[in-house]
Amino acid sequence: MSTNVLRTPDGWWAVRDEHAVRIDTKAVTTAGLLADRAAVREAAASGESGTPVADLVALPPVTTPCRVVAQMVNYRSHAKDSGFTGDIPPTFFRKASGSVSGPHEAIVRPAHVRFLDYEVELGLVMGAPLPVGTVVEERDLPSYVAGLVLTNDVSARDVQLTKTQFYESKSYPTFTPTGPYLALLEPEDFARLIDLRLRLNVNGVPRQDRTLADMIVRPAQALTLLARFQALDPGDLLLTGTPGGTALKAPPKPVEKIAALLPPALKWKAFFNGQAKNPRYLRNGDLVTATIATPDGHIDLGEQRTAVADAT
Amino acid sequence: MSTNVLRTPDGWWAVRDEHAVRIDTKAVTTAGLLADRAAVREAAASGESGTPVADLVALPPVTTPCRVVAQMVNYRSHAKDSGFTGDIPPTFFRKASGSVSGPHEAIVRPAHVRFLDYEVELGLVMGAPLPVGTVVEERDLPSYVAGLVLTNDVSARDVQLTKTQFYESKSYPTFTPTGPYLALLEPEDFARLIDLRLRLNVNGVPRQDRTLADMIVRPAQALTLLARFQALDPGDLLLTGTPGGTALKAPPKPVEKIAALLPPALKWKAFFNGQAKNPRYLRNGDLVTATIATPDGHIDLGEQRTAVADAT
Repeated sequence: MSTNVLRTPDGWWAVRDEHAVRIDTKAVTTAGLLADRAAVREAAASGESGTPVADLVALPPVTTPCRVVAQMVNYRSHAKDSGFTGDIPPTFFRKASGSVSGPHEAIVRPAHVRFLDYEVELGLVMGAPLPVGTVVEERDLPSYVAGLVLTNDVSARDVQLTKTQFYESKSYPTFTPTGPYLALLEPEDFARLIDLRLRLNVNGVPRQDRTLADMIVRPAQALTLLARFQALDPGDLLLTGTPGGTALKAPPKPVEKIAALLPPALKWKAFFNGQAKNPRYLRNGDLVTATIATPDGHIDLGEQRTAVADAT
Repeated sequence: MSTNVLRTPDGWWAVRDEHAVRIDTKAVTTAGLLADRAAVREAAASGESGTPVADLVALPPVTTPCRVVAQMVNYRSHAKDSGFTGDIPPTFFRKASGSVSGPHEAIVRPAHVRFLDYEVELGLVMGAPLPVGTVVEERDLPSYVAGLVLTNDVSARDVQLTKTQFYESKSYPTFTPTGPYLALLEPEDFARLIDLRLRLNVNGVPRQDRTLADMIVRPAQALTLLARFQALDPGDLLLTGTPGGTALKAPPKPVEKIAALLPPALKWKAFFNGQAKNPRYLRNGDLVTATIATPDGHIDLGEQRTAVADAT
C-alpha cells in the first residue's frame, strides 16, 4: 500500500483519510526524506488521529534544486493532437527546477507570454542513483523509483514554438505545479501504474482525461533511454508526458506543409493569428484542477488547484 | 590582469608562465574556490617558481554537478552555416553537467552516434547568484561573471536533428570538454572580451576561427534574457555559442523547402545519406585542439587537446 507524504513549511507528514501525522525526521530535502523511510513508516502506522489536511499549507513535495527532466510527446492522444505521424523518437528535455511550485499556488503568466497551456503529467521521483548506462527492466523499477507526484508541465506555446527548444517556455517560475502528495510506493504498487488516470479541468470543464494505457514509452524504458546520457540522483524528477487535450493543436497537414514553405517569421505570424481565436488557452482568473489516481484509490496523488494570474 | 586557475586531483593552482603555484584553500567546488579569492590572489602574487604545468594533470576547472546552460545559434557565421535567415530568437538549452570532462580527456563517441561534431565556445562561470528577473547591464557584468573557460559543445548531429530537442545530443559523458584554465577576471578585463579569438583545429587543420565581434547576443544581454526564467548560482556555466565552421552545414534553401514536404523519416534519411559523404565529422583517432585568447595574451584560456575515441 502506498503512503502519501505531504510537505508543509513545518516539515513532513504522512497522510491517511485526509488526516496528516507529523513525520519525526530531520530531513530538509526530498532526498533526505527518502533516506529516512523508517520515520515515514512509523508516522503512517501510528494510531494518531492527526491534523486535517485542509488545515495545512501544502508545499511541493519535491524540494529544489533538483534535476527536472521531461519526456516529449509520450501519449498517443497527444501525438495525434501535435500532428505527429509515424514513429516518434523518444526525446527528453530539461525544465529549470526553479519552475516547481506548490499544488495550490497560482500559475503566473509572464507579461510577454500570449498562449499559456497546461499539461497534466505523472512525475516519477527517483529513490536511488541512476548511473549513466543503467538498463532498467520492468521488475527493477521499484529499485530506482521511490514514488509518484502529480505535475502540470505549464507551457508558453508562443515561446516554445518560435524558439524550437522547449527549455525556456516550460521553465518560468510557477510553470511546474507539483503535488500535493508524494506517493511512496511499495514494490507491489508498481503493477497498478497502468491503471492511473490523469485528469485536468479548467474552470470545471474537462480538458484532459486518459489512463497510462495511452502512454508510449513506459517508465522502465524511459529510464533506460535517459540513462544513455543522463545520471539521476534521489529526489530528481522525471515528467512522463501529457495526454491529449491541451489547448494547442497542430494545424491540419496540408496547412502545415504550405506553412513550411514560408519564412519562419511569416509562418509563426499566420499560426499565432489563428491561435488568437482559440479560447482554450489559460487566462487570468482561470482555475486549473487536476488529479491522478487509480479508480479504486489504491494510488491517489491528491488534487491540484491552481489559479492563473497575470504577472503584476 | 586575469588570473588563470588550474584544477588537478590534488587541488587548485594559480598559473603564470606555464608554472603553477598551489592555492592554499579548502575549496572542493568551483563555487568554493570563488568564495576564497584571497587565497587565489596570494598564490598568484607569491614569488614561488612553482611546478611546470606540463607535469600536472588538468581536471575541468568547473566542478559538477552545476547548471550548464547554452545559447543556440549565437554567431553570425554559425547562423549562416545553419541556414538561418532573418531574426533568430535568442534561445537557451540545457546540457547535463555529467557531460563535463577534462581538457585533455578523450571525447567518447557512443556506438549509436554516426555524426559527431565539435563547437568551440566561450564559457562564462558565474561568480554571484543571478535571481530570476535580474537585468544585467554591460557595466554590471563583473558583479555576476567570475571568469571564463574554454569549452567544446560536442554534438551528436543525428540525435540532435531527429529529436529536435538538443538536450540528449549534447549531454553524453565527455561531450563538454572544459578547460584547462579558469581565467578569473578583474573588472577592467571585461573590456577585452570582444578581442577574444576562438580557434578549433582537427588534426591540425583549422575548422573554426572567429572573434567575439561575430557574436549576436553578448554576455550581459544573454544573462538578462536567461534571467527572465532561470536563476543561476556561483559555479554555474553558460556556454555562449559557437562560430561558423562546424562539420554540419544546412542544405541549400531550395533543398530544405522540398525536404519540408517529406515525412520526417524520409527527410532525415535523405539528409543523413548526404551527410555520410561529409568528411568533416569526427572519427576515432582524430585530435581536436582548441584555444581562446586575446591576440596579446592578456586573456588566454590555454589549449584544449582532446582525442576522439569510439566507445568500447
